[in-house]
Amino acid sequence: MFGLGAAGIAAAGAGAIAAHSLLQEPPVAHASSASDPVPFYGGHQAGIVTPAQDRLHFAAFDVTTDEKAELVDLLQEWTAAAARLTQGREAGTFGAVGGSAEAAPDDTGEALGLPASGLTLTIGFGPSLFDDRFGLAGRRPPALADLPKFPGDQLVPEISGGDICVQACAHDPQVAVHAIRNLARIGFGRVSVRWSQLGFGRTSSTSRAQATPRNLMGFKDGTNNMKLEDAALLREQLWAAPQDGADWMAGGSYLVTRKIRMTIETWDRTSLREQEDIFGRSKGEGAPVGRKNEFDPVDLAAMRPDAHVRLAHPSAHGDAHLLRRGYNYVDGSDGLGRLDAGLFFIAYQRDPRKQFVPVQMSLAKADPLNEYIKHISSGLFACPPGVEDAGDYWGRALFA
Amino acid sequence: MFGLGAAGIAAAGAGAIAAHSLLQEPPVAHASSASDPVPFYGGHQAGIVTPAQDRLHFAAFDVTTDEKAELVDLLQEWTAAAARLTQGREAGTFGAVGGSAEAAPDDTGEALGLPASGLTLTIGFGPSLFDDRFGLAGRRPPALADLPKFPGDQLVPEISGGDICVQACAHDPQVAVHAIRNLARIGFGRVSVRWSQLGFGRTSSTSRAQATPRNLMGFKDGTNNMKLEDAALLREQLWAAPQDGADWMAGGSYLVTRKIRMTIETWDRTSLREQEDIFGRSKGEGAPVGRKNEFDPVDLAAMRPDAHVRLAHPSAHGDAHLLRRGYNYVDGSDGLGRLDAGLFFIAYQRDPRKQFVPVQMSLAKADPLNEYIKHISSGLFACPPGVEDAGDYWGRALFA
Repeated sequence: MFGLGAAGIAAAGAGAIAAHSLLQEPPVAHASSASDPVPFYGGHQAGIVTPAQDRLHFAAFDVTTDEKAELVDLLQEWTAAAARLTQGREAGTFGAVGGSAEAAPDDTGEALGLPASGLTLTIGFGPSLFDDRFGLAGRRPPALADLPKFPGDQLVPEISGGDICVQACAHDPQVAVHAIRNLARIGFGRVSVRWSQLGFGRTSSTSRAQATPRNLMGFKDGTNNMKLEDAALLREQLWAAPQDGADWMAGGSYLVTRKIRMTIETWDRTSLREQEDIFGRSKGEGAPVGRKNEFDPVDLAAMRPDAHVRLAHPSAHGDAHLLRRGYNYVDGSDGLGRLDAGLFFIAYQRDPRKQFVPVQMSLAKADPLNEYIKHISSGLFACPPGVEDAGDYWGRALFA
Repeated sequence: MFGLGAAGIAAAGAGAIAAHSLLQEPPVAHASSASDPVPFYGGHQAGIVTPAQDRLHFAAFDVTTDEKAELVDLLQEWTAAAARLTQGREAGTFGAVGGSAEAAPDDTGEALGLPASGLTLTIGFGPSLFDDRFGLAGRRPPALADLPKFPGDQLVPEISGGDICVQACAHDPQVAVHAIRNLARIGFGRVSVRWSQLGFGRTSSTSRAQATPRNLMGFKDGTNNMKLEDAALLREQLWAAPQDGADWMAGGSYLVTRKIRMTIETWDRTSLREQEDIFGRSKGEGAPVGRKNEFDPVDLAAMRPDAHVRLAHPSAHGDAHLLRRGYNYVDGSDGLGRLDAGLFFIAYQRDPRKQFVPVQMSLAKADPLNEYIKHISSGLFACPPGVEDAGDYWGRALFA
């Protein structure tokens, strides 16, 4: 699909920015227990292949300053705060304990006493950041091409897009909420929250060490997700490389978010057979049609032609994989007697034009699940490589 | 305040319905680890003095049938489902595994494989249930008197009130969400979800074994909350007694919910001293003004006259206590660049007229916190006594 094996990447990347990160396979950032910190510094940002934590707070920001210098200042301040927060420390050096009582504390305080809880903070830059405000138009990566309109899209502009996103994942939601809130507070006067989304339950595993969780349709989700153990596949299909057309993105990844509302009340009235036929898997075990166990090889020919698993399968899209790390959400009720619930879909990849877009186009056209779901929000972001050390900052290579 | 000691209750309760529950101090229902089940049957409903679990899904329902018999059927079906769900089982006997594939499964499936996670389901009946639809007008308890309008209230009717509420608390939000969803599904055609609220972090302890958590203002909340170890106080101020004017409520409790939006961005810009003076406690330790440690006795005279702790203190309200078990919430952002966040306040008590109402009236009039908060939703519910065994059901004494 990508026309590049590991050898091709190695050749093209020799001498390029961040190529060492790509070649040396930096240690994967993950916590060993649910309360431990995840390393912040590294060649790739944490929160991508990090084993998916249980809880999410995702925020998209609009930049409200027109001064590039102010934006760069903010990114530096955010990076310093993120380095502290992800290690279980307060957002600034003057917190709720000690310091001058006449000033507002640097930290809002609600995570005082809580451990790091596996917090990761992952930043991304949206297409709108590459307009004429900051002189970045010439640096927009080819892979950050606007998503096409998919059949059936019912996107709400107010909860779509954004100049910058921050994905906060943690095992404790209070820790994830605290992190986003403190970044928003630091950004006051320079960015404002465009939209934000809490997710209460992860719907994908990103490591073989994790059990496959269930989405709100009751099915195991992401059984064949791209996972951190798939080293060759990650090189080929997750991480941007120098030769991809945007040097500053080498070691980064492209993020697509979709808020997918489910009409769960209708789904819940369909028969078990219909549900299983639509997905192409059994509901209890998650085994592919005609198989016995969840991880048995998929037999596409045994499924109905429009089964979800079949339509989305890599073999139907030039071997395109995604690293999904979405979350279930419930936003209360919808005023019509129904729960306002669904999936906040999150997928990382090397090039959405070759991965998310063809897969979603195929699903949008034919997936029988469309009767029960509605895409109401969409986001696309270029997530730069990791922060190397305390002298580095989020997006340095873009703004330098 | 109540003019009734334990001896008075014992005398009045002799021979009355459920009096044995009040006198014998039934074993407190709580799980020993975060994944264990909480006993469902007992003299009191679980989810009140049960040590507050970490996560909440609260739902208020409107009854859509006018047939009392259909409502009673529903309560019986709900009780049977709740008895199963709280023990970590599926909502019905025909789940996603086994049974006829031609029928919709009894259970929606997203909690398959998850443990009970301390799930409790607690039902309450709102004032509107006691109108003329079901012949219950004469059985409305005196303590279920409509709440007065408090100064500053900005209540949104669509997310206030409700004929019936169900509070689902669990250590895993997927388990709490699953329970509410399955009860809503069972209720199809008889009730519809009026409003629902997720809470991600508990803001009160209901047992001395729990550390005091923090609200989104960054302060420890509920240090002097009524707790399950306060046996005499619970008898006097938590559980309704036969002589309270509604026999069917003996062993039950009255629930007040308030959704309190915080303008956290403004709060976060106030000085540490101002924040601490307003609360009457230090932010880090949570010690009362002039004291050193969280649980040191409060010295009201050392605080400003309108400090939150001072205004709300039992000594200012005839020794009125509340059992609070509220949750932090974030509902995304508000379209104005701010997080839509705050406290979903939950308090149980024997008589809101003597407990919540005077305390809240005093706060609504003078609390300097009002500059940073807004009450946008209100709920009042009579939570009946517990379900004794498999032959009993939620609200039997009311409908019998």
